Amino acid sequence: MSLRDELDLQPNHVLQVIHAHASCRHYQPDPIPVEMVKAIVATGQRASTSSNLQSYSVIAITEAATRSRLSELCGNQEHVAQAPLFLCWCTDLARLGRVCQLRGYTQISDYVENFLVAAIDAAIAAQNAALAAQSMGLGICYIGSIRIHPRQVIELLGLPRLVFPLTGLTVGWPSQAPRTRPRLPQEAILHWERYNSDQDAALLQYDSEMAATGIYQDRQAPVPGKEGQVEAYSWLEHSARQASKAARTDLREILEEQGFLLK
Amino acid sequence: MSLRDELDLQPNHVLQVIHAHASCRHYQPDPIPVEMVKAIVATGQRASTSSNLQSYSVIAITEAATRSRLSELCGNQEHVAQAPLFLCWCTDLARLGRVCQLRGYTQISDYVENFLVAAIDAAIAAQNAALAAQSMGLGICYIGSIRIHPRQVIELLGLPRLVFPLTGLTVGWPSQAPRTRPRLPQEAILHWERYNSDQDAALLQYDSEMAATGIYQDRQAPVPGKEGQVEAYSWLEHSARQASKAARTDLREILEEQGFLLK
Repeated sequence: MSLRDELDLQPNHVLQVIHAHASCRHYQPDPIPVEMVKAIVATGQRASTSSNLQSYSVIAITEAATRSRLSELCGNQEHVAQAPLFLCWCTDLARLGRVCQLRGYTQISDYVENFLVAAIDAAIAAQNAALAAQSMGLGICYIGSIRIHPRQVIELLGLPRLVFPLTGLTVGWPSQAPRTRPRLPQEAILHWERYNSDQDAALLQYDSEMAATGIYQDRQAPVPGKEGQVEAYSWLEHSARQASKAARTDLREILEEQGFLLK
Repeated sequence: MSLRDELDLQPNHVLQVIHAHASCRHYQPDPIPVEMVKAIVATGQRASTSSNLQSYSVIAITEAATRSRLSELCGNQEHVAQAPLFLCWCTDLARLGRVCQLRGYTQISDYVENFLVAAIDAAIAAQNAALAAQSMGLGICYIGSIRIHPRQVIELLGLPRLVFPLTGLTVGWPSQAPRTRPRLPQEAILHWERYNSDQDAALLQYDSEMAATGIYQDRQAPVPGKEGQVEAYSWLEHSARQASKAARTDLREILEEQGFLLK
């Protein structure tokens, strides 16, 4: 869906940068100057934050050995080792623990709500930072697979109790221009006044659009309910497989170890 | 912290819009044209999304009666009724349930990880949409208090099982220019290579900066450990009070009712 299809407005630079987004998985090795990293994070910091508590932290990893180890921990994604900068966005209630100590209060951090406030703070700061980087010509990719081996990441980055690695970002100059992908037709995502469950037409339309991009090449998938028959593999099959796999089933246990009890 | 302090670069329009952010709580009543709402959400949709699953939805609320009811449910915040548009960003695994059904798979949605993937998708899409709105001259404010009475919000918006109201955004033309607030010194937020727990100097510096803004007016707070003595109330006291209050302790139960078991 291009911006022009949706909007009869002069697209401004913000809209242009956001609509040009595609995840970058191939980077040049050149390091990012410290002042640029600081500016990217400062731009992240301007995001809204619940009650101005700013309950997140970000670890900037530039050392090659740490990036290489992170790459292994994130499912052997090569670009995690290749990108000159890895930003690890963490929920951080440890800082508020210290604030309570300084003022003579007892912190409460045991509830789902406490974790959720920190997670939303961290995610929207990460997105601001991602756009800041992209506006400077850098490429980025979110690394949700930082949650495959969180115990090892926690140890590697020295994260104390009440700090948890929520998501990562690789950042660097692209060595290949990444391709944008279509998104779901808006009818499936945007609901007016009340939720609309009638989304089948949009899902089927998107399945065809994604097939047409060639992303899935010539893969085939079984036709549901018709044994032995196959058809083109596309987004529906991809998504159904993802959504029917149990993944990271130990995350709750690790969050508890780290002090997030999710009561 | 201004961008110029942090960065010896020509700030581009993306950086300018993000650094000008302040939450807007006073709106003009003028409605937002449908095409603008669609463009704002389309810009949200361009955000990264885990495995391209796009596991979120947004409900656009423009009807005055619904906005007024939402305002009550969100702790009687007047601007929720006043703003011409409320965007309710939801974690949505219901769509993936339908995708699994269409392709003959059994969905798994019981784990913390499933909820977290959807929550991060929703939050970063919301932030893209917020910036799109701000780039068009609109004001926005995140409404985390959508989680004060989620059961009632779920009913009001007709959210099915596996759809949960994560956060809200009020959107409209500002009737007063909101004031930006300083953020924590970067030393407290940005850590190089490993987490740095030594943040006291940054916290105390920020406490003074926030006091100097006049936001807390002439409020006073007890001096910790010195009975009967008072001092100026600032960010440390504000944050310690917030972080020591139990809030929304029924959220886990409500998430479970809605199908998010957080195993």
